[in-house]
Amino acid sequence: MKKIIGVDLGGTTTKFAILNEAGEIEQKWSISTDIEREGINIVPNIIDSINQQLSQSGLSSTDVLGIGMGSPGSVDIDKGTVIGAYNLNWKTLQQVKEQIEAGTSIPFYIDNDANVAALGEQWKGAGEGNANVVFITLGTGVGGGVVAEGKLVHGAGTAGEIGHMNVDPNGYECTCGNVGCLETVASATGVVHLAQDYAEGYAGDSELKGLIDQKQEITAKIVFDQAKKRDPLAKKVVDKFSFYLGLACGNIANILSPNAIVIGGGVSAAGDVLVDGVREYFEKYAFPPVKTSTEIKLAQLGNDAGVIGAGSLVKMSR
Amino acid sequence: MKKIIGVDLGGTTTKFAILNEAGEIEQKWSISTDIEREGINIVPNIIDSINQQLSQSGLSSTDVLGIGMGSPGSVDIDKGTVIGAYNLNWKTLQQVKEQIEAGTSIPFYIDNDANVAALGEQWKGAGEGNANVVFITLGTGVGGGVVAEGKLVHGAGTAGEIGHMNVDPNGYECTCGNVGCLETVASATGVVHLAQDYAEGYAGDSELKGLIDQKQEITAKIVFDQAKKRDPLAKKVVDKFSFYLGLACGNIANILSPNAIVIGGGVSAAGDVLVDGVREYFEKYAFPPVKTSTEIKLAQLGNDAGVIGAGSLVKMSR
Repeated sequence: MKKIIGVDLGGTTTKFAILNEAGEIEQKWSISTDIEREGINIVPNIIDSINQQLSQSGLSSTDVLGIGMGSPGSVDIDKGTVIGAYNLNWKTLQQVKEQIEAGTSIPFYIDNDANVAALGEQWKGAGEGNANVVFITLGTGVGGGVVAEGKLVHGAGTAGEIGHMNVDPNGYECTCGNVGCLETVASATGVVHLAQDYAEGYAGDSELKGLIDQKQEITAKIVFDQAKKRDPLAKKVVDKFSFYLGLACGNIANILSPNAIVIGGGVSAAGDVLVDGVREYFEKYAFPPVKTSTEIKLAQLGNDAGVIGAGSLVKMSR
Repeated sequence: MKKIIGVDLGGTTTKFAILNEAGEIEQKWSISTDIEREGINIVPNIIDSINQQLSQSGLSSTDVLGIGMGSPGSVDIDKGTVIGAYNLNWKTLQQVKEQIEAGTSIPFYIDNDANVAALGEQWKGAGEGNANVVFITLGTGVGGGVVAEGKLVHGAGTAGEIGHMNVDPNGYECTCGNVGCLETVASATGVVHLAQDYAEGYAGDSELKGLIDQKQEITAKIVFDQAKKRDPLAKKVVDKFSFYLGLACGNIANILSPNAIVIGGGVSAAGDVLVDGVREYFEKYAFPPVKTSTEIKLAQLGNDAGVIGAGSLVKMSR
């Protein structure tokens, strides 16, 4: 059985794994991402790290089926290039595939990081064994990836922009220029925005309200933690968050009928309180047969979703 | 080149076509659908009609690649069965594939009528040449079909329930038991419901308002015709309809990034006034790159979408 290499390129760390063809991780390592000098060392460092690891493991390029990579920024999957990945300082077009294939003699496949995480959860995580999985990642922003009938959906190029689904035509302004995008209420900053908004007119007894009034720095984690402690303002905020995300999930499921909608990213660390709330509104807005055929689940792979999904890119390309 | 037979099974008429492998119609005919006695004659009549047409055309079963069919009701595409098609009086499980293959000696493929119409528009209609097309049909209800990366999406079984996307959490009650489904405002009866609602408090000068006040029977066609004549109430109703459908199209496109969203069905006969309004709100709610990469278009195949899409089922299965 041949090996697959998965690479998860991030602004701070680049994670690597050697997987077998069943998607099981055999080796894992990471290097810090050198974003100095417009990120000129990023690709050479990846090449060196892979070659070194292979030689240490007694493997040669012919033992490897392919290298898959998830990248931030705007990825051209056919050409294997990346542009506009600002957390990598990559402002100009990067010939990633060309360089990595030349430097390793191994076939290379790339996609954007949200799509790759979706593939990871669909292959070995919360969506395992299902041909239809939608992944939503709640972090600084809200991203997503769609796997339909076993294929990652790119569409005309921007499929999976779930963070920009409109959930409130009278909602907050979004960085994209529109109003009421899911990202404005379900990202880490969105949850804080909701909390500040609701705190303003809130008259009852609430620890969260106290923190906000004292100008303490609020995070999504604080809001969810307070909700778990039954703080009434925090519960109101989480309820509104759940309404928006549940509405979005309902509409996704009405269109695509996925076996699972998988929720990951930093905000999802809140756990069951988050998924239970979302499920409540999902069931309100999903078409009746969809309520039972689509599961709302937490992501299971955590930080490994990227390297596993990157490996899946190799597997799916064959 | 072999032939393909497409069948579009409806409650009144069953339409047939012989297509070539390029999807061009070479012969077209139809028979009335005999729904008497729980629709027991429907399948035998289809078999007879196909066999008769083939023999008249000097063709044998070996000249035909396959028969594809679009059916109302709940279709099991793997087993080739249909249940709960109330406009055919089919209440119990119908072994359609088994009977038609036995009666014609030709491989048989089936899917529900909205999916088949989506395939037709994607193969030879408004979505021609595109691997990613979403089809929305506005009729008595609102249905749809999703083609992503060249594949018809079934998901866990109910993909394409676009009529049950929630477009207004405080909206009208839907026959499905939910509230605010797209179907409640964008179907033929939905448009009339909106018109009656808006007429109630309307004080200005309006022919439409006059018709409603006189208890005349209003149709979606009357509302759109009045809007074309610049009736102010009708324009308000069409604007609200456009808001809802444009919002749904924006969200579909943000998730799937289709090359085209194709609008068909009886209500779409209103033409440009409908598409222009929908496009205006679509552009408001679509993620900026999606505004230009997804086109909103009218269906082009009219009554032929069913037989052509049924032919596409055969083509895609190979």
